Formats: sequence, C-alpha cells, structure tokens
Amino acid sequence: MVPLPDHLIVFTPSGRRGTVADDSSVLDAARSLGVDLDSVCGGRGICGRCQVMPMDGEFQKHGLTSSPSHLSALGEVEVAYRDRKGLAEGRRLGCMARISGALLVDVPAESQVHRQVVRKDVDLGSVEVDPVLHFYYVEVAEPQLDDPTGDVERLLRALADQWDLVGIAVEVRALLELQKALRKGAWAVTVAVRDGRDVVAAWPGYHDVKLGVAVDVGSTTIAGHLADLRTGDVLASAGRMNPQIRFGEDLMSRVSYVMMNPGGEIELTSAVRAALDELVGELVEQAGVDRRDVLEITLVGNPIMHHLALGLDPRPLGEAPFALVTDRAVSLPASELAIEAHPAARAYFLPCIAGHVGADTAGAILADRPQDRAGVQLLVDVGTNAEIVLGNGERLLAASSPTGPAFEGAQISSGQRAAPGAIERVRIDRDTLEPRFSVIGSEIWSDEEGFEEAVAEIGVNGICGSGIIEAVAELMLAGVMNSDGVIEGSAVERTDRVIADGRTFSYRLWGDILVTQNDIRAIQLAKAALYAGIRLLMDHLGSDTVDGIRLAGAFGSHIDVKYAMALGLLPDCDLEHVLSSGNAAGAGALIALLSGAARRDIESAVRKIEKIETATEPRFQEHFVEAMAIPHKTAAYPHLSRVVQLPERTTVPATRRRSRRRSQQEDV
Amino acid sequence: MVPLPDHLIVFTPSGRRGTVADDSSVLDAARSLGVDLDSVCGGRGICGRCQVMPMDGEFQKHGLTSSPSHLSALGEVEVAYRDRKGLAEGRRLGCMARISGALLVDVPAESQVHRQVVRKDVDLGSVEVDPVLHFYYVEVAEPQLDDPTGDVERLLRALADQWDLVGIAVEVRALLELQKALRKGAWAVTVAVRDGRDVVAAWPGYHDVKLGVAVDVGSTTIAGHLADLRTGDVLASAGRMNPQIRFGEDLMSRVSYVMMNPGGEIELTSAVRAALDELVGELVEQAGVDRRDVLEITLVGNPIMHHLALGLDPRPLGEAPFALVTDRAVSLPASELAIEAHPAARAYFLPCIAGHVGADTAGAILADRPQDRAGVQLLVDVGTNAEIVLGNGERLLAASSPTGPAFEGAQISSGQRAAPGAIERVRIDRDTLEPRFSVIGSEIWSDEEGFEEAVAEIGVNGICGSGIIEAVAELMLAGVMNSDGVIEGSAVERTDRVIADGRTFSYRLWGDILVTQNDIRAIQLAKAALYAGIRLLMDHLGSDTVDGIRLAGAFGSHIDVKYAMALGLLPDCDLEHVLSSGNAAGAGALIALLSGAARRDIESAVRKIEKIETATEPRFQEHFVEAMAIPHKTAAYPHLSRVVQLPERTTVPATRRRSRRRSQQEDV
Repeated sequence: MVPLPDHLIVFTPSGRRGTVADDSSVLDAARSLGVDLDSVCGGRGICGRCQVMPMDGEFQKHGLTSSPSHLSALGEVEVAYRDRKGLAEGRRLGCMARISGALLVDVPAESQVHRQVVRKDVDLGSVEVDPVLHFYYVEVAEPQLDDPTGDVERLLRALADQWDLVGIAVEVRALLELQKALRKGAWAVTVAVRDGRDVVAAWPGYHDVKLGVAVDVGSTTIAGHLADLRTGDVLASAGRMNPQIRFGEDLMSRVSYVMMNPGGEIELTSAVRAALDELVGELVEQAGVDRRDVLEITLVGNPIMHHLALGLDPRPLGEAPFALVTDRAVSLPASELAIEAHPAARAYFLPCIAGHVGADTAGAILADRPQDRAGVQLLVDVGTNAEIVLGNGERLLAASSPTGPAFEGAQISSGQRAAPGAIERVRIDRDTLEPRFSVIGSEIWSDEEGFEEAVAEIGVNGICGSGIIEAVAELMLAGVMNSDGVIEGSAVERTDRVIADGRTFSYRLWGDILVTQNDIRAIQLAKAALYAGIRLLMDHLGSDTVDGIRLAGAFGSHIDVKYAMALGLLPDCDLEHVLSSGNAAGAGALIALLSGAARRDIESAVRKIEKIETATEPRFQEHFVEAMAIPHKTAAYPHLSRVVQLPERTTVPATRRRSRRRSQQEDV
Repeated sequence: MVPLPDHLIVFTPSGRRGTVADDSSVLDAARSLGVDLDSVCGGRGICGRCQVMPMDGEFQKHGLTSSPSHLSALGEVEVAYRDRKGLAEGRRLGCMARISGALLVDVPAESQVHRQVVRKDVDLGSVEVDPVLHFYYVEVAEPQLDDPTGDVERLLRALADQWDLVGIAVEVRALLELQKALRKGAWAVTVAVRDGRDVVAAWPGYHDVKLGVAVDVGSTTIAGHLADLRTGDVLASAGRMNPQIRFGEDLMSRVSYVMMNPGGEIELTSAVRAALDELVGELVEQAGVDRRDVLEITLVGNPIMHHLALGLDPRPLGEAPFALVTDRAVSLPASELAIEAHPAARAYFLPCIAGHVGADTAGAILADRPQDRAGVQLLVDVGTNAEIVLGNGERLLAASSPTGPAFEGAQISSGQRAAPGAIERVRIDRDTLEPRFSVIGSEIWSDEEGFEEAVAEIGVNGICGSGIIEAVAELMLAGVMNSDGVIEGSAVERTDRVIADGRTFSYRLWGDILVTQNDIRAIQLAKAALYAGIRLLMDHLGSDTVDGIRLAGAFGSHIDVKYAMALGLLPDCDLEHVLSSGNAAGAGALIALLSGAARRDIESAVRKIEKIETATEPRFQEHFVEAMAIPHKTAAYPHLSRVVQLPERTTVPATRRRSRRRSQQEDV
C-alpha cells in the first residue's frame, strides 16, 4: 500500500504550522497544532463555532500554495448547517472540512475560544472572554437493563470520554433538569459546567445561549449591562434609581434609618433586591432575550450596598471600627437575592476591601489595573467618601477619606446633582470679575448668543460638583478669594457680584445662585480630606509624586482636572496622565462576568492590598490642615503651573497665623 | 531553681500512661498522651465535656498510688460550672484540674469523643459517634480600626489558632447569623463546621445542642428517629402512614398515577415532603426539643420513594431499563425538601444501588454489614419486590426479584397487612387436618380457652404474609397439598375443611377465611421469584451454600424461618444463623446520621456492589421454574431437615409431567 501523503497546513493569525495526515479534519489539525479553534458540539457540525476560511493563492511568506479545493467538498452536514444557520461565502465548518492538500487557513476572531474583546461602549481594556460557565454538548449512553447506572453516572462518563472532563459532579438542583433533558433530547444534551467542576444546568440537544448581567449597585443609581457570555458582547445597558433613596439620600442616613427602625435593614434589602430584579427584567427586554438564559450575575457596590444586597446588617459599617462581615468575594444563588433568572444562575459579589472601601473599588482596580501600569498610579473614586487606591507594580494601598458629599453638590447652598440645568463649567473674568458658565444639557455658554433659549426648558437650577469646583478655583484665580478661602470684602468695590451676606461675603453667579462663604468652607473641607488621604498613601508608599491619575465615577468624567488640581484636590501630575476612567466599578463587574481568571485576579489583589485607616493616622490630620489652603500650602505643582498660573499664596490674618504657629511649635 | 517534678499519670480505660510536667491540666495531659478526652469550649471550663474521675488508692497494676488530692483544689470556674450544670461527686473538669502528683484518671464514656454507642432500641451494632457536623467554641478578636478585616476573616483566624482548623470557609447563608452571633456573644461564638470544611451556623457564646433525624421513607410507612448528635442517644421515634397511599397502595400504582396524570409527580412529592416535615415535628415534640436544633437529616427509601422525595420523575423507574437519575448519595439543604429545621440543616439521602435496589438496601447493608461477617452472607428485604444482597468479605452482589406483593398479604383472597386481627401463625393437625392459629394482637391460639374473648374486639379479619406462608407450608406438611402446589381433591374425603371451589379446591381456616388454590399459586410465584433471585446471586458468587441469612423489614421480624425454608423461599442454612435484622434500613439511616465515616463506607461499598439484573439473566428463569415446586424440586435442605421432616416430593399428574419433560428435552 502506498502511504497516504501528509499535508502542510498553516493557520493564521497564530502562524502555527505543521503537517497533518491526509483526510484530517481542520478542527483536528488545529487541535494537534495547538491552534485556538472553538467547538461546543465536539465536532458534530451542530454549533458552527469552528468556522474557518481556507485561503486561495500562493503565499510565499508561508511557503505554500493554498486552495479551498484542498478541502473535501461541502458535505451533507455543512449544507444542513448552512441552510439552518447560514454560512458566509468561503467559510467552512472546521470539524467537517477534511484536508487533501496544502492549505492556509484563517481562524476568524469569533471562532477563537480565547478571543480578546475590546469594547468601545464600556471600557474593559482588553479582556479574554473565559467565563466561569462553559457549555458542553454530549451524547450520553442510553440506560441498559444489564448496566444499571444512573443518568448522572452515564453523563459523567460521556463528559470524560468526549471532553476529557474529570472530577465533575452534578448539582442536586440540576438532577431533575438533567433527567428531563436526557429524555427530551434523546440522550443528547448540552450541560453547563461551572468552575470546571459542577454541572449546574442541562438542556435537551444542542443549546448555545449563555447570558450574564453585571451590576454596579450604587447608593444613588443601580446600573447594569447584559452580556453574551460566549462573545463578550454587551447586548443592553440600563440604569435606575436605587429605591433605597426613600429611606435616605446618602448612605449614612440609610444606616441611621436602620438604627432607628428595628428591622429596617430588611426593608432596605427588599428594596435593593427588587430593583436588581427589575433591572435584569429591563435589560432582557431591551435585548429581546429570555431571562431564563441569564446564568451569571456579578455585582459591585460600596460596603453598605454590599451588605444590604446580601441581607447583612449594615449597622456595624456605620460606626467605628466599621467592621465588614467579610472581605472575601461572595458567591450565592441568584435566587437568594430574589433575582429571577435561570434557576442555576449564581450571583458573584466582588470582594470588599475594608469597611469604607468596597467592592466598587475592587471593580475599579480590576478595570483600571493601576498595578499593571508604569510608575506610581493613583485611582480616585469620589462619592460620599473618596475611595483612594495608590500603588505601583509591587504594592497597592487603599484608603477611604471622609470627604462628605460636597463634591456631589450636597451641603452646597445651591448645590444639586449632576443633572440637566446644573451649572458645570464656570469662568470668571480676571478684570471685570464677571462670570460665564454652561449648564448640563446645553453646549452654549451663558455669554453666548442663544443661551437664554437653550436653557428656557431645562432651566439654570443650581451648581453640580464640577461646577462648584470650577467656581471656587476661578474665584481664587480671579483674586476674589484668598488662600484661606475667604471671599475678601475688598472685592465689593470691584464688582457687584460680590455681596455682603451677614458677616461674610458671597459671589453671585446667576439669579439667586450664589457661591457662599459656607460653600467654600464645605469644598475646602472636602478637598483637604481627599488630598490628605492621597498624601497619606503616598507617605506609606514612600513616594512624593504620582505618575498617573484615574478619576472614576460620574465625578471623574465631568470634572476639569486643571481646576481640581488648582484647588488642591489632587497632587501634581502631568495633566496628560490624568484621565477619567468612566464607570470603572461597573466595568470591573463586567470583566468579572466575562472572565473567571479576572475573579481570581481581583480576589488575590484584594488580599494583598494594604488597607490604611485615615482615622487612626495622626499624619492624616496634619496633611488635612495643610491641605485646607487654596492653593495648597506646601505641595508643589510643577506640571500644573505650566498650564495654570497659580496665584501667590496670600497670607492669613496675623492673629490666626500666630495661633497656628504656636500649635506647630508645640508639636515639635 | 529546683526543677519542678514530673508526675506519672495513667488514663483508664485506654491504659495510656506517661509523665507530665507539674501543674499540667488533665486535658493537656490527655492530649499529649493521645487520650480521647472531649472538649468543645477549648479548655475554658464552659462545656463540661472533659469531665474525668481521679481515682483514690494504690493501683499495683499501674504501678502508682493515686489520690484526688494530687489535683489542684476545685477552683472558681469548676464551682461555677457545678452550680450551673451540676458535677457528680468526685468528677473534675479535665481542663481546670491541674496535676500535682501521681494519678490514675478514668475517662467516663460520655467524655470520649469517639465513644462507641451500643443501642438497644435500634440495632446499630456498635457505631462510633462522629457526625459530619462538629461544634467549636471560639473567642474571636474584636474588629479594630487599624486592622480592617472582616468578621469572617477574624473567625477563621481564631479557628486556626484555637482549634488548628485550616482550609475552612463560611457558607454565605451563615454570614448574617455569624454577624449577629459575634455581637450578641461579645465576640465569643460556637460555630458548626460541616465536613471539616464549612462553617454553616453560629450561635452567640457557648452552644451545645445538636440534633439529627434519620428517616426510613417506606412506601407504606415513614418512620424516623430523633437523635442527639453529641451522644448518639435516640431521643424519640415515630412513624406515620405515607400519605402517598391515597395515590395508590403499592409503588407501581403510584408510578401509574403519574403516568396517567401529568404533573402527578409533583403531588406525590408534596405529599411525602409534608409527611417528612410532620414527622420531624412529631419527633421534636415527643422529645420536647426545638426543631431549629435539628441540623442533620438522613434518609433511606426505595428508588421510587427516593426520586419522589427528591422531586425527580419516578416514571423511568416504572419501566425497563429502570434508570435511576443517580446512584450516588444526594446531599441537599433540608429546606429544599420543605422540612422545617435549622436553616443550615442538610438532608443526606443514602445512595440507591440500582433501579430496583434502593437506598433502603444501602441502609440495610450499612446496618447489617454482610461483608464484615464470616462466610457467605445473605440479606433479604421483602416488600413488593425482594431486595437481595449476597456476599462475603470480598464481593457484594445485589439484585431485586419481582416477588409481587403476595408476601405482604396482597393478591391473597383473604390477605391483609400485618395488623391486629390478622392470622399470623397456623398449624394443621397431620391426622385430623384441623387448623389452629393465632392472630396478631393476641397470644392465645384458636384452640385454647379464651380465644373467642381474646379476639372479640380485634376480630379475625384475614391472613397476613407470615400467616399465609405458614398455612401453605402446613398444607404441604399435612399432605393436603402436593409438590405442584395443588390441593388434592382426595382430601375432601378426609376433612370438610377442604372444599370444592369451582374446578379447584380450597382449605377453610376460619369462617369465610380460605386458603384458595389461587392463593397458593400467588405464594408459589412469589417464593419462586425470591428463591431464583437468591440462587442467581449464589451462581454469580460461585457458592452453593449460604452461611448466614438476615431478614430485614417487618416481614423478616414476623416470619417463622422454618416455614419460609420449608416452603422454599430461602436456601438451606443453619437455622441458628438465620436472624431478623429488624428495620435494618432505618438503622442504616441512623448510623449515617451519627457517623460521617459510615457515609463514606456505604458510598464506597455501593460503588463496588455488583448489580445483577434478574430480567436479563436466562438462568433466573431456569431457577424460577425449578423453585415453583413445594418443597423445592432440586435444592437440598440438610440443615432444615434436622428440624422439619419435609415430605417426599409428590409426583405431578402424568399428562403434565410428560409435557414438562418434552420442553426440557427441547432445551437440551
């Protein structure tokens, strides 16, 4: 017998090459050469996941002449697949096409198991889609009278034989589903295996719909994405108010509600769970899919949202020492959160880091990966507290700083949330001291034509967080306010925008929207707390500078970094390296949804994070006092000063300076 | 400094001895010498589980003079314990009593962790009480501002430090309980750890109530025991009818109900689960305990009860090839069976062996341990089917034989269950052919004075399984019936007890209670099936004899073995080695409740059992035909014949003999 010839085969984009026996399938060739080519049905021509493109022509680089005719002709199974699901021109099913000559085969991205997904709508960086749940199509032996094994045992045998899966168990909950699916599917089923260990669901025959939901449980907004766990595609995104708001606007007032109302935590838990369930409903409706195909849910949130969603008592988080129940990731059936989904669906809450640094920060770390970027990286998420992460390739430190809600527009006389009609950009003429501003919902500045018409409907309703920061910074830059944050009475002579307001002075922006002395005090306290927290972590890390800053959350995406730095919220940094990271927490939840490896990564990162408690560090108080001045009393801003001309530090009144000096001497 | 002296210490009953440093506690001494001395509170004088008895006198055998005064005086903690919980005269708390001289210390049985429990009321053999659930009292560090670890992490650290427990996780469900218990117990809690792996429950401070329920889910009766998981004591026992009876008396009619009524399996599941919940309620009420202290539940039952209790579809068990969903043990939260107990309670269903050989048989094997006794051992459980286990130290074989319900009194003209008023013992005078009998509920035989009065209330209502077996055997021994099982018409001449009944003859026992020809046929078919199943297993084992027989279940405890053997139900065996094993299945459930090792034992035994399917073995049919004759056509009964004089085998009528010979020749 003449031996059958071997054929040279080259796969792109991997470039893997080798010779394979005549009549090998492309799928087998890919496997033998270690090429990443997907298959769910195990080479039966059902799933279509192993589609490849045989190339035509002479490829000198690869040293071969390839032709689609070097594959077996389109067979019955492929024709059936094409008629049923469609097969693009030139595409072949890798499991069915058999090799009869030299071939260059391209593996399109969607046929790769470990394809990189780069998302535009959600900033995921580059995530390898490899969720904790995998589907396997198996053909199980029929029961036989003389081999009285159970359905489970025959399934496990088939998984071992057909997929090399061993050490697998079937969850009790899935037994009935398996029993029915085996019979309905005539002993062919698709099973979902979680964590490479447990069969958690079964469908008759071939099944390939696998969805997940990632949720950021914020104290104000609950936002989520619905994703296809096979492709990583985001199919829908939605958000809704956190219904707990009726129990208190901010977190501490909700904890107070629980303290005042025994059993109140149950109401709060029910409220947030109902919202989670509704959110999932909205997402699947938007995407036109079945909520019973949702098999995984990931969640991030601050510690209090974390505890309330999980039905834990939030009160210990409301007072020192702010003890979490657990700083490990928590995984539980979605049904225990009263979320309607597939009965096997599990919810995975990313780990909290400390009593004030939640799973949202863990999510932000997962999305932002400060530890993977060069130099000293700072990640800041400003909410009622500021969560601060600082680190480099070797260490990661985290702290929470009690900024209070001023940056969110609360505690500000005309403050409001970042919503249409809120002033978000402010400039003050250095000479005339007249303001110009813009509001959310309009591109037109207040001194431009058409402004009145533009805001006729939305109104000019108040100042949001970024607006008040710019306003205070501009007051400083225009010389209306001194380094102590005092609006100087002398300015009354220069402009009627500065008005006496009892014993202090205010600056009138628009109508009755003022920046009052108290507003400035609130911003001063908040920014000093934020800066002091950051500076404390820099001390712990042993660094006086940062090389990059990421600002997470809504605050980070609205703020003009120049002003934040000028005001002294942040340490100096090359402005090109200061970026908004969008909803990094939510992106982290999505990454954990799409990748089991990412879960292990963040769990291990969180274990290693050094947690710094600002309340017990004397240096925090020192940094706080120094950071009260505007601009900052001692910190240098070399990068910023190339862009913004900071004023000389104005002196504090003599009496107050003396008393401060005394206390400093006492410290020495 | 003069070195402190060491002291000789001897523990009984273990006999372990050694020297320990002066001022060692008895508990520490026991641990250092490997003596089994219990402690739940970790040596804090709280639990009282380490009680010991210091002996007084000269013990030549042990070479020491011991005195209770060689222990430190009763201290504050022991006095407090004595006042609170009582401390018997002479007893000391091992953790508090410190050694100052030579000492003989007795460890009473209740202070041993691995005490052997020998039960009288339930035959457990000798079980080492070591359930899957262990309690640990721990003192957990309070949270600190500058060490922001979660409650879970501090608990696990304490378990590692105080109990050397590592690799532990806390179940999500227990988080809230733990959070509350830590604060209520001022950071001292007792936690329950299941399988040495998961913290599943937590109580504030010291807690030591740990109960379990073992249930035999029979098709007729559901019976259970409530046990103390610390001591192995059975605190209550109860039984109730299986409410599924309203859907059909026997198993197959219940499966038929499901086949005829879509969704009927849900009704059947609800019915049996409700009964399980009520049974637990009855047990805890009887014992005066709280059902929230029930933490473990074990279950046995035939495959159909197993599937229905677990909410699986029983229909595949109703027709060939009788495929189980699983032949592994199934463990699930008790709440999923709708049983109200501690929220952490788990239910463990022993493994089924094959489609007709259930977890009840696994339980019987666990209780009876045929594999651990010398020689070839036979275990038979007779119900609607007979479950048969045969084996020796090396192999275990199991089969189910389709006896039908005749042995339970069904399919018998005057048959009834074994209940008051049922004839259970029958003798027929060899000369007069007059019967005498006794009924369940009365000790007086029918020919004795006072019988009429004795049965006036309960009546003589029918014949139960053991009664019909004795009746048929006596008809044979009295020569009324021939080897073919035919009541001979010639007997009419000898007694008016034999009456023509159409074309056949019946024997009148009492009033209108007859033994008809059809009754004998039913018994013949049943006993031939049972014998053939046993014989088939003997063939597979390669043995012509059995050395011991255990008869499980109600049938086994009522039957007179002589008659069963004379009739040919069972193979020959020394009658002294034929015993009733009581409710061996229920005893097995109790053993699995008290011992985690027993669970692993039976799981591994079941995996190794050789399952024989009678329906597909041609030899079963051959054995069945040979076993129809009464007495058995070919089997020898040397042991039995020392006790009972079996009649010569009477010939079959010539015409029928010829036809049988012909068919035998055709077989050759």
